[in-house]
Amino acid sequence: MAPSVSPLAPAHFPDLPPIAGVKLATAAAGIRYAGRTDVLLALLDPGTMVAGVFTRSKCPSAPVDWCRARVKGGVARALVVNSGNANAFTGKSGRAATSLTAEIAAQAADCKPSDVFLASTGVIGEPLDATKFEAVMDQLVTSAAPGAWHEAAQAIMTTDTFPKGAAAIARLGTTPVTICGIAKGAGMIAPDMATMLSFVFTDAPISPKILQGLLKQGVADTFNAVTVDGDTSTSDTLLAFATGAAAARGVAKIADVSDPRLPAFRKAFDAVLANLAEQVARDGEGARKLVEIIVEGAVSKTSARKIARSIANSPLVKTAIGGEDANWGRVVMAVGKAGEPADRDRLSIWFCGIRVAHKGERDPSYDEAEVSAAMKKPEITLKVALGLGRGRDRVLTCDLTKEYVAINGDYRS
Amino acid sequence: MAPSVSPLAPAHFPDLPPIAGVKLATAAAGIRYAGRTDVLLALLDPGTMVAGVFTRSKCPSAPVDWCRARVKGGVARALVVNSGNANAFTGKSGRAATSLTAEIAAQAADCKPSDVFLASTGVIGEPLDATKFEAVMDQLVTSAAPGAWHEAAQAIMTTDTFPKGAAAIARLGTTPVTICGIAKGAGMIAPDMATMLSFVFTDAPISPKILQGLLKQGVADTFNAVTVDGDTSTSDTLLAFATGAAAARGVAKIADVSDPRLPAFRKAFDAVLANLAEQVARDGEGARKLVEIIVEGAVSKTSARKIARSIANSPLVKTAIGGEDANWGRVVMAVGKAGEPADRDRLSIWFCGIRVAHKGERDPSYDEAEVSAAMKKPEITLKVALGLGRGRDRVLTCDLTKEYVAINGDYRS
Repeated sequence: MAPSVSPLAPAHFPDLPPIAGVKLATAAAGIRYAGRTDVLLALLDPGTMVAGVFTRSKCPSAPVDWCRARVKGGVARALVVNSGNANAFTGKSGRAATSLTAEIAAQAADCKPSDVFLASTGVIGEPLDATKFEAVMDQLVTSAAPGAWHEAAQAIMTTDTFPKGAAAIARLGTTPVTICGIAKGAGMIAPDMATMLSFVFTDAPISPKILQGLLKQGVADTFNAVTVDGDTSTSDTLLAFATGAAAARGVAKIADVSDPRLPAFRKAFDAVLANLAEQVARDGEGARKLVEIIVEGAVSKTSARKIARSIANSPLVKTAIGGEDANWGRVVMAVGKAGEPADRDRLSIWFCGIRVAHKGERDPSYDEAEVSAAMKKPEITLKVALGLGRGRDRVLTCDLTKEYVAINGDYRS
Repeated sequence: MAPSVSPLAPAHFPDLPPIAGVKLATAAAGIRYAGRTDVLLALLDPGTMVAGVFTRSKCPSAPVDWCRARVKGGVARALVVNSGNANAFTGKSGRAATSLTAEIAAQAADCKPSDVFLASTGVIGEPLDATKFEAVMDQLVTSAAPGAWHEAAQAIMTTDTFPKGAAAIARLGTTPVTICGIAKGAGMIAPDMATMLSFVFTDAPISPKILQGLLKQGVADTFNAVTVDGDTSTSDTLLAFATGAAAARGVAKIADVSDPRLPAFRKAFDAVLANLAEQVARDGEGARKLVEIIVEGAVSKTSARKIARSIANSPLVKTAIGGEDANWGRVVMAVGKAGEPADRDRLSIWFCGIRVAHKGERDPSYDEAEVSAAMKKPEITLKVALGLGRGRDRVLTCDLTKEYVAINGDYRS
């Protein structure tokens, strides 16, 4: 199966600048796929700080366990990511594979195994043969170079149809620092702390505690507000690495949450996360429409999020959008089943800016032909106003198509 | 679109005996469909008791509001059901339509409007023209006859591919009484008190309070344990009517929960509910596999139910089963995302009785060919053992196929 590129993909991979202190390399280790790269190594200069957020799954993968135990240390020297095998539900052999991978990388990177971070994505339950990393590690270290973002984003893809990257420049005082990130997504996407896999790098000097706070706040309205199929992965991992290389250009370290330079950095950091998260929705398995769900007038933001998720995960809403049908009756259903405060007789609904239902009834003035034309667009906005309070939230999703069923009816076999 | 009959359908509609005190009639009122019946009238003898359970949706349909307000009275003389229009999210005109329908039926049945029960199923948000019932009401009353169950079950179908009925005989002391039920389902099925529409009738003399208790207990492991797509309907309605006609054969009324005859009646009553609920899963939109999810070893029954639902509603699990792939990695994912206590390293999973994963790893002894052969069967059992406690539960669902997407991508338009 060679899936065609999502029609919602960006025109091209963005131009990502190198980050001082980060070198990247990819290789084909033959984990599962033939004829493509499947391992990414990121070498990080001494002094690199790390933060991470992970899946809330009760059955996390072995690399998630590995990273979660080591991220508290706050320092990182290498990142090894493979695609094709998630090393999840692999028991003792899975734990052994993470240890061996870290040892192999530590030797090559001349650091401690505990400074190596790991992520794996692909099939669940198959043993991961970590000796395959040994065969390519020398080649990886030799070829590691700054700025190989496109290759890095390609090596971590599974059913993704395009590589995902984003960058932003922030000013710390007057000095520019760079933030670059890559991500992979596609299916099993209902992140609950992070998306399947995403890695963000910056040359800003920043303490692990501040970096962790940025991540935790940043994911709430970006990766955690995306759903493709409501299925939370066992492998969700979002790691942020700060090399601190900008200190050489006179940038003082950000080590305090009240640092006046933090808001500008946060804005750029969040923009990278939001950009990557949107690309994940654009590459939802089988997706033909990018769908933005806005819920306002809820009793709280939390309530708005729950209702927006109920709409975004409803197979009936998603198939209707795939069929270019502004079937707002199914939106009513999804609001009703969310279990959150809602008053049928105050509810209004818009598709693509056109109000189709108002105060609990079909809007008598709406023009079905106008709505039908709007539903043919590749980007659909669906807004629900509850009329109860000031709670507002936004979730991104995609439609549910026969291609999703086809992709997932024969992914493993 | 003329959907072919589900391959999981029973061989034929079951043989349902008449219930003394119940007369049934159907008609084609032209609500939405052409060339088929779309209205059911049940005339109930004086003295009929009623109980009901309804959707927990926060946006219930007008007939749900109507029934919920009147079921407390405990008496019923008529039931009017239409297909093609759900009379949901129809505001004031929807409320007016329920009142008018009840008046029309009350006049024909010579009773009070408040003794008329209503249910509607079909499109949400379209005004329901209740005057259409007036045109067929005389014909309905004239033609009403005992035992027209097959026709009744057909008139309430929407995207159902077969009519659903079930019957059981219970002995109250030595005297047999009869329980007959019909149901419709197909899509928007994740009942949360009842399925979309189901009506159960008995000639047993039984107080409304006892009947309500039977219903409430009975749905928990039957209709409420079925899910097709996780989408709870705005119209879920399950009504039970007890004509009491068996009193003429010397059966004393059941009016006390400690009545020694109640357990036998409950058993027969539950069997009818379970049979109808299973038929709803068998007719899930696009279904090609009936899937029984068993979760055991959970910390409680409630926890087991939540995990079973998480598996049953996972698009990735459902598409894998549609693809005849025993993809237990996705089962691990669905257990993990349920948010309930689970220990990856104690988890075991069986497909069709074959253990494929044991204590957090792939079962080394399982034979992929054997599992693949078993997955080709139309009825699939998926068992998960958590190894934590004694909580056990069972949920019925079906697979997710391209046909589900096709049916729901163009249902309204």
